[in-house]
Amino acid sequence: MLSSPPVEADPASRTSEQPLSEPKLVNRLRDGRRLSLSLAAPLSDEDQTVQPMDDASPTKWHLAHTTWFYEAFVLKEHLPGYQPFSADFDYCFNSYYESKGERHPRPKRGLLTRPSAQAVRDYRAHVDAALDELFAQSIAETAADKVGALIELGINHEQQHQELLLTDILSLFANNPLRPAYRAPRPKVEAVTEAARLQWVTFPGGIRSIGHAGHGFAYDNEGPRHEVLLRPYRLADRCVTNGEWVSFIEAGGYHDPLLWLADGWATVKAQGWMAPGYWEERDGTWHQMTLEGLLPVDLRAPVSHISYYEANAFAQWWGKRLPTEFEWEAASEGCTPTGNDLSSDALRPRAARPAGEGRLSQLFGDVWEWTASAYQPYPGYRAAPGGIGEYNGKFMVSQQVLRGGSCATPGGHVRATYRNFFYPHHRWQFMGLRLAEDAA
Amino acid sequence: MLSSPPVEADPASRTSEQPLSEPKLVNRLRDGRRLSLSLAAPLSDEDQTVQPMDDASPTKWHLAHTTWFYEAFVLKEHLPGYQPFSADFDYCFNSYYESKGERHPRPKRGLLTRPSAQAVRDYRAHVDAALDELFAQSIAETAADKVGALIELGINHEQQHQELLLTDILSLFANNPLRPAYRAPRPKVEAVTEAARLQWVTFPGGIRSIGHAGHGFAYDNEGPRHEVLLRPYRLADRCVTNGEWVSFIEAGGYHDPLLWLADGWATVKAQGWMAPGYWEERDGTWHQMTLEGLLPVDLRAPVSHISYYEANAFAQWWGKRLPTEFEWEAASEGCTPTGNDLSSDALRPRAARPAGEGRLSQLFGDVWEWTASAYQPYPGYRAAPGGIGEYNGKFMVSQQVLRGGSCATPGGHVRATYRNFFYPHHRWQFMGLRLAEDAA
Amino acid sequence: MLSSPPVEADPASRTSEQPLSEPKLVNRLRDGRRLSLSLAAPLSDEDQTVQPMDDASPTKWHLAHTTWFYEAFVLKEHLPGYQPFSADFDYCFNSYYESKGERHPRPKRGLLTRPSAQAVRDYRAHVDAALDELFAQSIAETAADKVGALIELGINHEQQHQELLLTDILSLFANNPLRPAYRAPRPKVEAVTEAARLQWVTFPGGIRSIGHAGHGFAYDNEGPRHEVLLRPYRLADRCVTNGEWVSFIEAGGYHDPLLWLADGWATVKAQGWMAPGYWEERDGTWHQMTLEGLLPVDLRAPVSHISYYEANAFAQWWGKRLPTEFEWEAASEGCTPTGNDLSSDALRPRAARPAGEGRLSQLFGDVWEWTASAYQPYPGYRAAPGGIGEYNGKFMVSQQVLRGGSCATPGGHVRATYRNFFYPHHRWQFMGLRLAEDAA
Amino acid sequence: MLSSPPVEADPASRTSEQPLSEPKLVNRLRDGRRLSLSLAAPLSDEDQTVQPMDDASPTKWHLAHTTWFYEAFVLKEHLPGYQPFSADFDYCFNSYYESKGERHPRPKRGLLTRPSAQAVRDYRAHVDAALDELFAQSIAETAADKVGALIELGINHEQQHQELLLTDILSLFANNPLRPAYRAPRPKVEAVTEAARLQWVTFPGGIRSIGHAGHGFAYDNEGPRHEVLLRPYRLADRCVTNGEWVSFIEAGGYHDPLLWLADGWATVKAQGWMAPGYWEERDGTWHQMTLEGLLPVDLRAPVSHISYYEANAFAQWWGKRLPTEFEWEAASEGCTPTGNDLSSDALRPRAARPAGEGRLSQLFGDVWEWTASAYQPYPGYRAAPGGIGEYNGKFMVSQQVLRGGSCATPGGHVRATYRNFFYPHHRWQFMGLRLAEDAA
Repeated sequence: MLSSPPVEADPASRTSEQPLSEPKLVNRLRDGRRLSLSLAAPLSDEDQTVQPMDDASPTKWHLAHTTWFYEAFVLKEHLPGYQPFSADFDYCFNSYYESKGERHPRPKRGLLTRPSAQAVRDYRAHVDAALDELFAQSIAETAADKVGALIELGINHEQQHQELLLTDILSLFANNPLRPAYRAPRPKVEAVTEAARLQWVTFPGGIRSIGHAGHGFAYDNEGPRHEVLLRPYRLADRCVTNGEWVSFIEAGGYHDPLLWLADGWATVKAQGWMAPGYWEERDGTWHQMTLEGLLPVDLRAPVSHISYYEANAFAQWWGKRLPTEFEWEAASEGCTPTGNDLSSDALRPRAARPAGEGRLSQLFGDVWEWTASAYQPYPGYRAAPGGIGEYNGKFMVSQQVLRGGSCATPGGHVRATYRNFFYPHHRWQFMGLRLAEDAA
Repeated sequence: MLSSPPVEADPASRTSEQPLSEPKLVNRLRDGRRLSLSLAAPLSDEDQTVQPMDDASPTKWHLAHTTWFYEAFVLKEHLPGYQPFSADFDYCFNSYYESKGERHPRPKRGLLTRPSAQAVRDYRAHVDAALDELFAQSIAETAADKVGALIELGINHEQQHQELLLTDILSLFANNPLRPAYRAPRPKVEAVTEAARLQWVTFPGGIRSIGHAGHGFAYDNEGPRHEVLLRPYRLADRCVTNGEWVSFIEAGGYHDPLLWLADGWATVKAQGWMAPGYWEERDGTWHQMTLEGLLPVDLRAPVSHISYYEANAFAQWWGKRLPTEFEWEAASEGCTPTGNDLSSDALRPRAARPAGEGRLSQLFGDVWEWTASAYQPYPGYRAAPGGIGEYNGKFMVSQQVLRGGSCATPGGHVRATYRNFFYPHHRWQFMGLRLAEDAA
Repeated sequence: MLSSPPVEADPASRTSEQPLSEPKLVNRLRDGRRLSLSLAAPLSDEDQTVQPMDDASPTKWHLAHTTWFYEAFVLKEHLPGYQPFSADFDYCFNSYYESKGERHPRPKRGLLTRPSAQAVRDYRAHVDAALDELFAQSIAETAADKVGALIELGINHEQQHQELLLTDILSLFANNPLRPAYRAPRPKVEAVTEAARLQWVTFPGGIRSIGHAGHGFAYDNEGPRHEVLLRPYRLADRCVTNGEWVSFIEAGGYHDPLLWLADGWATVKAQGWMAPGYWEERDGTWHQMTLEGLLPVDLRAPVSHISYYEANAFAQWWGKRLPTEFEWEAASEGCTPTGNDLSSDALRPRAARPAGEGRLSQLFGDVWEWTASAYQPYPGYRAAPGGIGEYNGKFMVSQQVLRGGSCATPGGHVRATYRNFFYPHHRWQFMGLRLAEDAA
Repeated sequence: MLSSPPVEADPASRTSEQPLSEPKLVNRLRDGRRLSLSLAAPLSDEDQTVQPMDDASPTKWHLAHTTWFYEAFVLKEHLPGYQPFSADFDYCFNSYYESKGERHPRPKRGLLTRPSAQAVRDYRAHVDAALDELFAQSIAETAADKVGALIELGINHEQQHQELLLTDILSLFANNPLRPAYRAPRPKVEAVTEAARLQWVTFPGGIRSIGHAGHGFAYDNEGPRHEVLLRPYRLADRCVTNGEWVSFIEAGGYHDPLLWLADGWATVKAQGWMAPGYWEERDGTWHQMTLEGLLPVDLRAPVSHISYYEANAFAQWWGKRLPTEFEWEAASEGCTPTGNDLSSDALRPRAARPAGEGRLSQLFGDVWEWTASAYQPYPGYRAAPGGIGEYNGKFMVSQQVLRGGSCATPGGHVRATYRNFFYPHHRWQFMGLRLAEDAA
């Protein structure tokens, strides 16, 4: 559910810029397929097999599921004579598509030592070859549109799992007493030597258009584009830092029930939370488990691995609030959706550089930003018919929207209208926050 | 938490129409205090002591907690020389006010065989006498405003618990193999012999003002009043009936995962839900446990005791959706907030009478109507400082808003801006639904 | 299960000394029936209704179940024309007799606010009158034997529930923040001013006969009488005292895993046990919740409310062991089964008086003594056919035997061969221990 | 806990026949070390890493833990200058020795993707080399005795884990939808074409000596040798077969609560048990998951993968009982402890061959036989001081004894006095039963 690859509701009606024969699509497909393997490369077959908790999945499962997606939605239907790699894989690697039949229970994904990681790689090669074959064929234009849309969806779906692959491995390694590193730590040559002073940027109220406008790919939950009414507001020009979070801890933030949502306070007590996820004190210094192993917390960098409950309590303590997803989206208008994402290869949130007077930094990349908005359908939203439509709609309750992507989000995956969503207690993603307030 | 009496954020700033000396306030206070006792009257002390599940509370606890509220927030501070009834009662009867100190764990409220039900009645008498004394005194005008506001809040708080008292007793009796009746069934003389044909009423889009306007009492979560942008929409002129729900069941609604939210489907499977709460088949006929005992389901009456998940799945099946809370509120403009509420003494939802062309029936009373809106703060909302402010704000996550009141809501308690909220799996309240759709 | 009234396997074959017409039986029956009511007398109907935890039952349920037992096993079959009090009571008050049909789930006994406590008292009166009628009739001698045996069983069954009634109420009151007393504390006029020095009594090895010999009533699990082979052993002449237990606590007994059974250590950590059940520190002094309320721990009295795990760890710490049930029984040969039981009306374990050189004190009464013996069938044991046989046999796994009765056991109920049994984590009964060791 | 390698209480006092220099010991050590690797050989590193349930452990963990045992108990203390392979391994591969420090939580053993399976094999090589070095040294005779005893213990400890390795892998593969085979099925050339008719063998009563006599290795829980008193009894000459179990199923055995222990019936209902572990119906035929994959049930072979509860219910249904562990041991006197164990390489229980008039077959090997005896200390038993003594003693509650070894027990590991023990609900071992009854 959490690995839920939100998908486009009605691929056929999507305005795709890439026809199937269009070279960019096939290149992006191949790049994406390669990226998954290269993300898995530092991991042993053992690492790739184990499931650290119910919410997460094994690397191998991600590699197979993203492949199954092409097989189930594209190849079986659109490549004449396609031979599925194995009859068992439907059962093993369907995530939650009720319309695609029975499937292996999510909490038992980690028991699948067979098919082996090598079999999964063979599966990938088999499907990749079939996709190449599909591209080599000439198909009718309408079918081309439809297939192109499904492949575009498959690319985006795989990108989501690339991020999950990294966060799930981090969860696994954080549970390992050896605190293994996904990769060796790299020297940190930051331009910034101390955290930028937090500044506020004001945005006007009024009627604003929200949601995907119709050009390029977007998930169905980003539309329909519609108008919302905003009141004047201000956003912090950067995310909350680890240093600021330490102040919150030291001020007793985790001990004052009045700062917390009732569900949040119950979670703090039940889980014994005293700090963000993966933080531990060693020799009197806060460390955090990262993809480069256990490292001292970088006080200038954005806080990460916090739940919605924590984000909310922090804002309460600071006397501010979280932005709504609409405020966030309106503020990001005109910004290029780039930043410290997976393509920068930092694999961790980095200290903000000042964006300049009246501008926001860290909008994209670094950490997903919890918003005050519950994850709900936009006016006029309807899920697509069929399997593809089983997605976003069915998760639209009890979750909160996050915006902006993280250091683990593949480059080019997010945009200003992109809506990620998780339960308020989740914190294994790269999740942080940006403060907001009403403008006078 | 569920018994959460949402309260006014800042009583002092509320525009109260009733000064303390104002006779209507004292009369309403006394009426309210009497009503609680009269609701408890058909119940034995044993009935009043037991807690049927964690979400519910014993009758006796409701009687005591609503009394403690006056003691803790009004008398201790504003009646000079007030002697608390018992030092232990703070611990026993505080619900969830962290600022008022440690309290008895919610799931163990049913273990409090002491203080006895009689002691609780004595406690009520003690506090009522002190409140009389308070009214007899002359107090400074500013204090009068503040005290008046707190008493107004106490009255509303007690009304909420009056409804919970009834729904909690129903839950208790539904768990009893004897299926005891809270009161003897009364002959049903309905003007309506069959369910009214469902009609649609269209409402225009545009900017609408939502939230409490400032006259009369309201909870803090009903404000600040603010503008929202609506798109043209239609609402069904009455609630979904039991008869329509039977069709849903017979069409396999509880067996088709594609109709359900993912969390909802998981709940259906885990709980084995096959029908609304309290429904059971006897001799081939659907019956439902009611406050008048186990009775055949009235097919014309609104369906009740359904969760948000079920409401959503039903709407999906019907090809419609739930209204947002803003659509509901805008549609109710100008309607008098009366209906089949507790004051009609039916104690059950009743079949709708046609409201007439272009009008909505059953807006108020009968059943709380699940809306599509997550329970979130309105723009500009801030909880009040101090104990009184511990309320609504801290529940604003993971819950859904319901509107309109039910057959168990005390007369005069709700209004068009009133926001009730429960978790999506809850169904022990009188909860139903009204369908909505976009207008072209 | 815990309230399991172990019953006689084959009542017909039991050697009963009391024919049905025999005056002692009817008197004992009436005395027993009266005793239950008098034990309940200090309790309000509310107290009698609530179930403090799954293992315990409400007072009212005990009163009804012991009555149902006569109705189900005696009156329905043996009193011509008997009219059951209510058709519903079979469902409500059957404990665990699968052969007697479906029954109300054990963990929900506390939800039965109806039938009321008064209805239960009426039920008792109805059944008592029918039993009187049964005694007034002349019945054939073989039937008389059978009915007499069943009534004897009913008396013993009710005695077991009398003890449970007290321990269950203590559990309820210990969960109440008011720490209410079942009765007012009585002045303690002990002959003993300090704990007797612990002495060892040696017993020879050899073949000994164990189990009930055939005269008088016994439960089926006390037979068949059979021979066991013992090795020479020694028993402490009194039970372990609270004072000795304080030493164990202060020596870190609850913090040293090496003293504990693995399951015990896991329980200590999971439950946070730091002292016996119902102990709490107030102003630096150990107190224990008792039937007379929260009182300072009497250091000379036997420790009570300890689990098997704790008994075992204590013995380990002391360098001794627990006796087997056979050692205990052999040592008690020739002792009168009297002591500080319910008939002494102390309602708490009392300090031992020295029994005299080579003699054991506190064998009967005060506290049930955990033995090293798992609860298993004696050689040749077979459960009786029919409902009556559903008892002891079905509990013979994973439990440990306790011997000797407690301060809450009705006078005359236990004997040297009597086997009580509970799970090793249980401690809500009056449970303590006596040390043992091998003799040279 | 279940993987608990019961160990010798006091190695020093054991009468060892093998001095350290004695060639047989070093050969047995090397054979044992090799066997573990060869058992793991058919498994991928992925297979070796995953933990199928809390009770089971990953193959890799077994390989490492048995190695750690030599490092922790032998090499660190007795090989001067020994360099531990890795400082982290103590934490990772200690099972439950509280005296050896903190350890990785048992339910998280499956998260240890690092150390890798290859690192574990290197660890084994490192420790094996050090053990060779130890054998090459000349050491004082007293030390030699002690070290020899510890190595003997290490060999036996590893044998226990060899059996667990197989049963744990079977559990993992049974959870895999592919139902993978540990090895390819081999043709079954049984001498027996139908199940042998069950015959009864009578044994006399009287005083019998039970427990290990002092020659050769034995675990501490097999002693002290002591006398018990038996009554005349009969044992079935073979184990209960799958065919007989099918009759039990078809007679409704899993649906009649009167056959079951109360805890057993609760487990049947909670788990939905309808047949032995790993049984599933395919095309109307019972199959069972085996180390050779999913195969039709062999009706002549002993039933396997049943819990104590099931064994007990079956015996009840048949009108017999289970033997005590003493009856079993006395009956096996003079029998050679060989049978269908791991050395026969069948990897499954096989149909009994008639043992001949008055003789028992299948005593050793095939399936562990549940006995009626709770796992308790023998008279005079005391755990050894220090880490080595942390074993058997701490598991002596709530478990039942099994006797005789199984098809997965390494050859030479068991003997007549050998006591295995598991909780009554366990069934993932090769567990079956043999019937017993009293002799007139």
